[in-house]
Amino acid sequence: MKKKGILAVVSGFSGAGKGTLMKALLQAHPDQYALSISATTRPPRAGEEHGREYFFVTRDEFEGMIQKGALIEYASYVGNYYGTPKDYVSEQMEAGKDVILEIEIQGALKVKERFPDTLLLFVTPPSAAELENRLRGRGTESDEVVRSRLKRAVEEAESMESYDYLLINDELDTCVREMHELIQAQHLRTGVSSEWIEKIKQELRRL
Amino acid sequence: MKKKGILAVVSGFSGAGKGTLMKALLQAHPDQYALSISATTRPPRAGEEHGREYFFVTRDEFEGMIQKGALIEYASYVGNYYGTPKDYVSEQMEAGKDVILEIEIQGALKVKERFPDTLLLFVTPPSAAELENRLRGRGTESDEVVRSRLKRAVEEAESMESYDYLLINDELDTCVREMHELIQAQHLRTGVSSEWIEKIKQELRRL
Repeated sequence: MKKKGILAVVSGFSGAGKGTLMKALLQAHPDQYALSISATTRPPRAGEEHGREYFFVTRDEFEGMIQKGALIEYASYVGNYYGTPKDYVSEQMEAGKDVILEIEIQGALKVKERFPDTLLLFVTPPSAAELENRLRGRGTESDEVVRSRLKRAVEEAESMESYDYLLINDELDTCVREMHELIQAQHLRTGVSSEWIEKIKQELRRL
Repeated sequence: MKKKGILAVVSGFSGAGKGTLMKALLQAHPDQYALSISATTRPPRAGEEHGREYFFVTRDEFEGMIQKGALIEYASYVGNYYGTPKDYVSEQMEAGKDVILEIEIQGALKVKERFPDTLLLFVTPPSAAELENRLRGRGTESDEVVRSRLKRAVEEAESMESYDYLLINDELDTCVREMHELIQAQHLRTGVSSEWIEKIKQELRRL
């Protein structure tokens, strides 16, 4: 079966371990996955590189992309635009790579609306107590920041059921394996395989 | 996360290798899966045992089961009833086993209607030519029987898209692994995990 890439969106609570998870997944299967790179109007921070962390663009450039329909989804956050450029995603998928977008819930639901075959994954720690532990354990966040992240988690939890699958990030290796299996399973979905189904139907009729 | 069993329905063309596949899956994971046993009014053949191949019942008994709502689905085929007893399936699922029903397309769609979380898997050989090879390769079937099976496959192919996933049975071990992964992935579906989601929502609110 010809394998076109799958589009998978990963969201989850701040502190759920999405970053570590994605890094481990891409390291384990470097030829299988491509991580989508967002465009943003926010200025680069020290150590960030254009085309690696983000595509850094001007406000005019970003609004040009919106008008040309060059973004799969975009949002404005604390006065800056963030969005997913369509071309990179399409190119990678055509080349057979499974593309992962790590974006917020609102963006995730927009992508699913536009591309119904998108796989929506929600990453969560095994319990709320563990989420708090991880946020505090970083040791870099003030109590105020931890409280605001937990408050945000309460809001985000309301949308968990809009996702296709939950990924409970308890043990990293298990979670990476489950994520890989879930994405690979999408290649077998009948909706994704309609060309293949059409082909075998025609072959059967010709026998 | 508490694991209640998943209900999976396996259908597919005659000659796709469903029987071999199920046997290999159950051998590889004897504690994980339970194969549902159908009730039928057809008489046992030599070597068949009550409660192993089928539950052999009388017409009166079968109609009693229909009236009591004791069957998940049933159908009549060449003058005999075939059906899936509900109790066995529920008991196994409550005990955490993933239950597999190997049934025809009509029954599969009825089960899905009644239990929307059911996973529908369609097993197919990699091509129509390979299906014909396998049917002829058995050497036990007359040309007429092979033709009628292929004709039936053309009809069955029309319903492939109603299934959730295609399983292309090319190499047995790969197909068994894919089947296992697909069924296990269902435990992570948000629809199946609604109790768990409710729990973490409450925990988050209490932090």
